Amino acid sequence: MSLGTNIKVTVFGQSHSPAMGAVAEGLPAGGKVDTERLERFMERRAPGRNRFSTQRAEADKVKIISGINGEGVLCGAPLSVIIENTDQRSGDYKNIADVPRPGHADYAAYVKYGGNNDIRGGGQFSGRLTAPLCAVGGICIQLLEERGVYIGAHIAAVHGVKDALFDAVNPNAHLFNEIAEKDFPVIDDERGELMKKEIDKARTELNSVGGIIECEIAGMPAGLGGPLFEGIEGEMSKALFGIPAVKGVEFGAGFSAAEMLGSENNDIFYYEGDKVKTATNNHGGILGGISSGMPVIFRVAVKPTPSIGKTQKSVSLSKKENAELNITGRHDPCVVQRAVPVVEAVAAIVTLDLIMERCK
Amino acid sequence: MSLGTNIKVTVFGQSHSPAMGAVAEGLPAGGKVDTERLERFMERRAPGRNRFSTQRAEADKVKIISGINGEGVLCGAPLSVIIENTDQRSGDYKNIADVPRPGHADYAAYVKYGGNNDIRGGGQFSGRLTAPLCAVGGICIQLLEERGVYIGAHIAAVHGVKDALFDAVNPNAHLFNEIAEKDFPVIDDERGELMKKEIDKARTELNSVGGIIECEIAGMPAGLGGPLFEGIEGEMSKALFGIPAVKGVEFGAGFSAAEMLGSENNDIFYYEGDKVKTATNNHGGILGGISSGMPVIFRVAVKPTPSIGKTQKSVSLSKKENAELNITGRHDPCVVQRAVPVVEAVAAIVTLDLIMERCK
Amino acid sequence: MSLGTNIKVTVFGQSHSPAMGAVAEGLPAGGKVDTERLERFMERRAPGRNRFSTQRAEADKVKIISGINGEGVLCGAPLSVIIENTDQRSGDYKNIADVPRPGHADYAAYVKYGGNNDIRGGGQFSGRLTAPLCAVGGICIQLLEERGVYIGAHIAAVHGVKDALFDAVNPNAHLFNEIAEKDFPVIDDERGELMKKEIDKARTELNSVGGIIECEIAGMPAGLGGPLFEGIEGEMSKALFGIPAVKGVEFGAGFSAAEMLGSENNDIFYYEGDKVKTATNNHGGILGGISSGMPVIFRVAVKPTPSIGKTQKSVSLSKKENAELNITGRHDPCVVQRAVPVVEAVAAIVTLDLIMERCK
Amino acid sequence: MSLGTNIKVTVFGQSHSPAMGAVAEGLPAGGKVDTERLERFMERRAPGRNRFSTQRAEADKVKIISGINGEGVLCGAPLSVIIENTDQRSGDYKNIADVPRPGHADYAAYVKYGGNNDIRGGGQFSGRLTAPLCAVGGICIQLLEERGVYIGAHIAAVHGVKDALFDAVNPNAHLFNEIAEKDFPVIDDERGELMKKEIDKARTELNSVGGIIECEIAGMPAGLGGPLFEGIEGEMSKALFGIPAVKGVEFGAGFSAAEMLGSENNDIFYYEGDKVKTATNNHGGILGGISSGMPVIFRVAVKPTPSIGKTQKSVSLSKKENAELNITGRHDPCVVQRAVPVVEAVAAIVTLDLIMERCK
Repeated sequence: MSLGTNIKVTVFGQSHSPAMGAVAEGLPAGGKVDTERLERFMERRAPGRNRFSTQRAEADKVKIISGINGEGVLCGAPLSVIIENTDQRSGDYKNIADVPRPGHADYAAYVKYGGNNDIRGGGQFSGRLTAPLCAVGGICIQLLEERGVYIGAHIAAVHGVKDALFDAVNPNAHLFNEIAEKDFPVIDDERGELMKKEIDKARTELNSVGGIIECEIAGMPAGLGGPLFEGIEGEMSKALFGIPAVKGVEFGAGFSAAEMLGSENNDIFYYEGDKVKTATNNHGGILGGISSGMPVIFRVAVKPTPSIGKTQKSVSLSKKENAELNITGRHDPCVVQRAVPVVEAVAAIVTLDLIMERCK
Repeated sequence: MSLGTNIKVTVFGQSHSPAMGAVAEGLPAGGKVDTERLERFMERRAPGRNRFSTQRAEADKVKIISGINGEGVLCGAPLSVIIENTDQRSGDYKNIADVPRPGHADYAAYVKYGGNNDIRGGGQFSGRLTAPLCAVGGICIQLLEERGVYIGAHIAAVHGVKDALFDAVNPNAHLFNEIAEKDFPVIDDERGELMKKEIDKARTELNSVGGIIECEIAGMPAGLGGPLFEGIEGEMSKALFGIPAVKGVEFGAGFSAAEMLGSENNDIFYYEGDKVKTATNNHGGILGGISSGMPVIFRVAVKPTPSIGKTQKSVSLSKKENAELNITGRHDPCVVQRAVPVVEAVAAIVTLDLIMERCK
Repeated sequence: MSLGTNIKVTVFGQSHSPAMGAVAEGLPAGGKVDTERLERFMERRAPGRNRFSTQRAEADKVKIISGINGEGVLCGAPLSVIIENTDQRSGDYKNIADVPRPGHADYAAYVKYGGNNDIRGGGQFSGRLTAPLCAVGGICIQLLEERGVYIGAHIAAVHGVKDALFDAVNPNAHLFNEIAEKDFPVIDDERGELMKKEIDKARTELNSVGGIIECEIAGMPAGLGGPLFEGIEGEMSKALFGIPAVKGVEFGAGFSAAEMLGSENNDIFYYEGDKVKTATNNHGGILGGISSGMPVIFRVAVKPTPSIGKTQKSVSLSKKENAELNITGRHDPCVVQRAVPVVEAVAAIVTLDLIMERCK
Repeated sequence: MSLGTNIKVTVFGQSHSPAMGAVAEGLPAGGKVDTERLERFMERRAPGRNRFSTQRAEADKVKIISGINGEGVLCGAPLSVIIENTDQRSGDYKNIADVPRPGHADYAAYVKYGGNNDIRGGGQFSGRLTAPLCAVGGICIQLLEERGVYIGAHIAAVHGVKDALFDAVNPNAHLFNEIAEKDFPVIDDERGELMKKEIDKARTELNSVGGIIECEIAGMPAGLGGPLFEGIEGEMSKALFGIPAVKGVEFGAGFSAAEMLGSENNDIFYYEGDKVKTATNNHGGILGGISSGMPVIFRVAVKPTPSIGKTQKSVSLSKKENAELNITGRHDPCVVQRAVPVVEAVAAIVTLDLIMERCK
């Protein structure tokens, strides 16, 4: 469960283990960590924030265990963080051991781990494991800003209702901040209200909805990444698909490039002062796997939360026969809004990892 | 430029270096390599096969340099292959050093390598580097078939013209073979003719088109992969984005899952005999990053070939001013059809890599 | 600070950070962890056990944070452990920031981390970081015994006083256990008394001594490892040199092989029943980097503890001039006896890592 | 069979495969490769150079396949080299498949690869695979010299006859060059003559001898490496144990440190101008796994060549009974002198790898 080359992040924990955490190796010594700011970042992902997310009330309080010297500065040792699991109700999940939930990892994990996987609260497959990721990513965001790199994300769509999109050529870091402060992170709040209606409707109907998140990285230096399997798209997508529920990733024009002519898709170069820029950004800031100096921009598809209140068909593994399943417990009818800071966190880790390769 | 964990593939070479090649570590000792069959696989990617691809006539003849014992059997040593570059015409590319081609890696590479990158024929960014990938992947395909795993791919769309899609629940390995033998690898040849018209039109207009490739892996064992950054989607996408021109990857329902309800997207489990299956396959054979035992199915977006005959705007790096660019040389108006076996090859490498982790 | 391929261990923490810990990925799901037995293993390394080690009284209590399911069984998720640092006295170390201690990492770390390294108690260079290693290694020892593999180590020498050596051909697992229960882990207790005298003398003279540890792995399956950089010697030595104060590693006959004739050093093969064995074990159980099925046996050289009470010459980094240094605080006059279980722990991690590759 | 982090070297080939080779990823773009100088370096390892090595007359001609641009400069793409195998006589080795040679990898490889390993000429275990390592290492030596780092090695002992040792505090790069030009690379030629007598005697008696190689790295920058498993000793030893026949590695005072007092072994710091140095170098230039700025110095133990002409006892794997073995073919009575440039090459790869991490 590791990520990265120059910066290596290892996540550990289960939904109902004593704690979850992460270790980040390779963070640059000398960097400062603003813990208050990190706490605010963590709140964006935390559950129970509003009626659109699960009511499990975890504090998601980050304890920094190592990596900081006596002055609160990164000391070159691996940074490690712990988040305690305080509000487990394991009783809610009992049936899962035998009747795998559709759309969940239950059955696949049962096979992989020979029935030993921790089924309490989803175990190592729980969305809760994105909390330690956010802790590390939130610190990376701070370190990136010291280097002039800014990351923003928003809900681009929920169940087909679309938000406006970021400006792929001239990113607006102020907008990134504005969105980050919103309860419901969209550019256009009116579109946001329509999305919320979709979520409310799904909740009422014991159902769920998915959506799309768009993310932009402003200030990305040119010349990072590499050809073939060293490419930024590959590194970034590997990290993004690590976020539970992500089923698609596209950069720049992405799938719509498949419908363009070369003359439409090619982004022409020009000089703005002595800086080479492109007039459009269908390439999403990445050419041949390498950053072009334009903003990196991508979108991820998030599937509807698989835990729904409706009765579903499944199987009983012990009886080897078909069965019905009713999932109780607390579940988000939509995880897209909570996944927004997770996407930012993951993008920050990958970006700092790329920047650390710089002098080679 | 490495790929994989249990099987590690390293690709080397430039378009105009003496040769290209690849090393594959970790292939299972004892496996047989059918070199004639490998040759036929290589031909599917080779240029000059029909009027839809570049006329550069490379033989793409694979020489196995190591990894085979005296009986032609994999001996446990790294397998290495070499493909000589025989038909370079370096003169064609001279201007590129100064005026970067829109949509190409030229400028990004210029920054990364301080102007030292090999610009002849695209250097290490050339699509030709997919040939050694196909050589290794073609061998992996043979080893997978010994293990009951079959991989097929086809052109799902060219410039908006769509092919039929694979059956995501009941894959048809015979269909895979049929398509592999076609000059233009589609399911529905009538749709294929419409696609060819798009390509012809683009060529006539000195333009290019992109498309979408769909790939399915039949016989994938359940229980491979893992949560978070160990997930199959992550490994596979990292590999797929390593193919030049790929800008998007989605698994199962992918981006369309973002428009579904949970009750629509969840694939219900049922017993077929004593095997657990799902009635639909929106999860693309992967749940929680782990294979479910259903076919793995995914789609990749391929952008239009960036090299087009039309005059384009760019910059002169030496003069630090805007400039115009006319690309001569031989170029494919569409690379989607040639990318089909490359997608199969990459999928095979990743799949065999996953299978090799099995006993852990 | 990671180790391993199939099993990956990452250690984190500093001497005076809130806690230290380790994450172990890839441990086999289904294995049981005997926490009481682990505690007894931890005590062998713990300080303050007898007069031969520092009086800092850390409990070294291991908390398992993740990796275990509700039944106390390894669940396939990363295993993580935490050991709290409870008895720091940071004041003791103040001067070190300016005047680097001879034989310590202070100066090298000052350069590497630009003066940001945590100097309290040696920071990330503290021998205390071997405690989380022992926690993970102690669990690996349990998992190895389930697989018929036994690991033992003893003090082979202290300041030139030598113990008897293990039988390299017919290992004695009972002897391993006997030694593990001793306060001073030697084969021959009379030799042990002489060693203790050397240590006492060094302590009295405000000095320190080093020594040699011998380790044997019984039940090692044949056929693990590989040629060149896949070799067992390389993996094992990389891990062993990760133990602070280790300056030399040799396998089998080691350096003395350099003085032998080929006919003396070659271990002849013979059949014992239907098992191939060697009559002698100068190869230390490893041929061509691969295990031969004979016991793996090696020795590591441990330098004298660099922290000594005597006044030493050094430099003042702030004044850029030569300076004198008096180290106060609590220090072991010899760390060899405490390093014995650390060597076993590291050997166990590497061995289990090798065994996990088995089916490839 | 890979090595390194920032620079990654993968070696491939077997003794009797069409060719051997290596790929080096991460070499700094813009570096020049002096191929004539590389050729001279290769000659130092080549067989048939004098009566002390095997008469197999391979040219060991290095072909650079990729990684170089049109101007002969490193272009950032993986550098790959090929050395053809031209003088195989496979017939010489037939019996080995059934009767494993004592001291060789034959039996261990038979188990690992299920009898599929290439037994011709030792297959992937052949010392010939150090030739591609020397090709890559020889280029790294050139790149290191551009950065002020110089590497030298010599035979420190053969069968107990010792050479003088390098000055561990004030390295002499001129001496390195002098030794490199000698047929028999020692400091003291008189001692060298005594060593040759040992080798001659061994040859006459159909036997073999081993020895010790000392290597020094002058100009090593301070601050490279890291604690625990990031340490230089670990990286270097992993690489050195990758050289066939190496059975021991020690840094600085190494095993003799185990017999010193702390006050003897600690190297005191002092200022020479504004540079911090140590008065002695028992630490071998590495403290806490990090370079101190002093020369890195280490020794490796090389076992006697296992192939000897004397009749030896072994087993017949097919008959499952004890057997006798007579090895014919061409073999070195001592490989120490040929291993000297291999040690330099490996040290160069690891050192350049470390230097490439510098800006992180």
